[in-house]
Amino acid sequence: MSFNYTKYINRCFKLARKGAGNVSPNPLVGSVLIKNRKVIGEGWHKKIGEAHAEVDVVKNAKGKVYGSTLYCNLEPCCHTNKKTPPCAPFIIRNKIKKVVISNLDPNPEVNGKGVKRLREVGIEVITGALEDEGNEVNKFYFKFVKEKLPYITLKIAQSVDGKISLSNKEQTWLTGKLSVKYVHKLRSEYDAVLVGAGTIKTDNPLLTVREVKGRNPKRIIIDGKLRIPTESNVIKNAKSTETWMLTSTVSPKKKIEILLKKGVKIFQLQTDKNKRLNIEGVLKELANQEITSVLVEGGSEIFSQFIEKELFDELIILQSPKILGKGIGYYNFKKMKKLQLMDVEKLGNDIKLVYRRNSTHSL
Amino acid sequence: MSFNYTKYINRCFKLARKGAGNVSPNPLVGSVLIKNRKVIGEGWHKKIGEAHAEVDVVKNAKGKVYGSTLYCNLEPCCHTNKKTPPCAPFIIRNKIKKVVISNLDPNPEVNGKGVKRLREVGIEVITGALEDEGNEVNKFYFKFVKEKLPYITLKIAQSVDGKISLSNKEQTWLTGKLSVKYVHKLRSEYDAVLVGAGTIKTDNPLLTVREVKGRNPKRIIIDGKLRIPTESNVIKNAKSTETWMLTSTVSPKKKIEILLKKGVKIFQLQTDKNKRLNIEGVLKELANQEITSVLVEGGSEIFSQFIEKELFDELIILQSPKILGKGIGYYNFKKMKKLQLMDVEKLGNDIKLVYRRNSTHSL
Repeated sequence: MSFNYTKYINRCFKLARKGAGNVSPNPLVGSVLIKNRKVIGEGWHKKIGEAHAEVDVVKNAKGKVYGSTLYCNLEPCCHTNKKTPPCAPFIIRNKIKKVVISNLDPNPEVNGKGVKRLREVGIEVITGALEDEGNEVNKFYFKFVKEKLPYITLKIAQSVDGKISLSNKEQTWLTGKLSVKYVHKLRSEYDAVLVGAGTIKTDNPLLTVREVKGRNPKRIIIDGKLRIPTESNVIKNAKSTETWMLTSTVSPKKKIEILLKKGVKIFQLQTDKNKRLNIEGVLKELANQEITSVLVEGGSEIFSQFIEKELFDELIILQSPKILGKGIGYYNFKKMKKLQLMDVEKLGNDIKLVYRRNSTHSL
Repeated sequence: MSFNYTKYINRCFKLARKGAGNVSPNPLVGSVLIKNRKVIGEGWHKKIGEAHAEVDVVKNAKGKVYGSTLYCNLEPCCHTNKKTPPCAPFIIRNKIKKVVISNLDPNPEVNGKGVKRLREVGIEVITGALEDEGNEVNKFYFKFVKEKLPYITLKIAQSVDGKISLSNKEQTWLTGKLSVKYVHKLRSEYDAVLVGAGTIKTDNPLLTVREVKGRNPKRIIIDGKLRIPTESNVIKNAKSTETWMLTSTVSPKKKIEILLKKGVKIFQLQTDKNKRLNIEGVLKELANQEITSVLVEGGSEIFSQFIEKELFDELIILQSPKILGKGIGYYNFKKMKKLQLMDVEKLGNDIKLVYRRNSTHSL
């Protein structure tokens, strides 16, 4: 019998993705149980604190799981200092015969130890099945665990000539309905969205998920001097949707008190010599708060800092079919950045371009 | 019997396109002859001065064409003041029974008269079969005949942040091999390429077709003050590849003489109050010279003029996966331009975006 794992591992990815937005800081994990060449169960990690995929799939299985093969996109865990019991002993107890996984869990508490435990009792374990695709599924988790930093995606809506607005003082609506819907979908999957205070002042956005089904992300506002108007939309509904403000240690106490009363969470961080918040410091603080993924939505100065310091992982351009001719771009640095094109898609009259950060080149 | 023209008209388009680059200022025309549901001949207009498609297809036909149906993407001509004899009488003489065409010929000498002539002798004529697609095939010819102006395509290679170069004084190589190949293909199909003198000075391009098979376009250089270095590549091989310089009426006679000796063709035009050549005047002169299509390849000032005055039909962006962060864009105007997205394609790590000019919007 030839062994073809592609179909089942791909199914695991699909199941895993169903947990997107609800399991952070855990990884997305899906699982399929096969016995006598038939699928006898499917499962996935649905919510932080609830059953892992390996447990869920056994719970859902039709018939006895004894002697079956478990497909899973992540190495079963074996550590106990967490909310749910470890999965490797569970697999052993259920007398599963063979385990096929796409990725080892880079979490140092697991990282090969789960596989070792299974092999020690004679379970056949195959690893690295569609590993690259598995890396994509858990790009947030892997970055977070390996680098102790959130995965950063810059989402930039721009004109054909690379402008994000006509000026710093007026809202410029560039993209169409399908792009807006896509952005809401992204928000529903990222732990947090992040903007500068300027974007709040100019656009007064809600930064919530409205055009698709899904939970709202945390809203993070970088505001060194705490200049944000207290009547902003994000402040007005801070009690129903989490709103965090990252500001300097010298921000006015009175304004802080007003914001706290409105339900805003305040983080006071050190500033750099230009009295701006240090972006690296911001990201470390977010990682401390278990934010594994951040969608950066503007504006020009925030984008420029992330690009210049190469602190982003992904760049999503939503390009409108307009030429502004004048206006604000998102750059202010000397060194050219080279990207890797990952994906292109037409969204109505707009174009979605997905880039990953690559090595830095001088021309 | 149901009547389905799609297949044969699409074949006509394909045959027609084989003439691209070689029939201007004539239209691209392909033709198929059908008898007893079988293709008995195919033909196309191959070269200016040679047989029209309708004649070519009959010449190539296997068996007698009597009683057959002629498919053609353009109305057969009926006028005699030109290089080849008219096609409508030829069709009648050959006793073709039915004619299916996609587009009427907007040339006022034809424009419905060809169809009328056929119908008068009892030939069944169907018009408007895949008319929109036919408009695409002959977009150069239709613009030229209707507006007495060449079809203008701006080809802009740019970074993600909308820059075309790092500065006006250094060549910036942005796009990859596949994009270069695509540009050479475009050149082989346009009557002419057009650049400003600045582009010649900075990049010293050849503007020829090298990466694909095809003939070179005419090279048109806008140089109001005739500042172009006489050792430029385009000047050095002006005797083998046509090179036209459009300059002002006050350009130095001595330089003109040098250039004429090197094989350059000189056109002296009136300048506007800023002592710049008037772009509308340039295009009218090119139309006088029977240039039906122009690929504008740079630089910043030339692009900006065409965009500001809305004198382009198509905009092809070749977007490199680089962020320059500083540099030169291609804009200098106040009114936003709205475009229509026509096509998107991945060219290696670059993206090709094809836009058409649309109505002008203010935000």
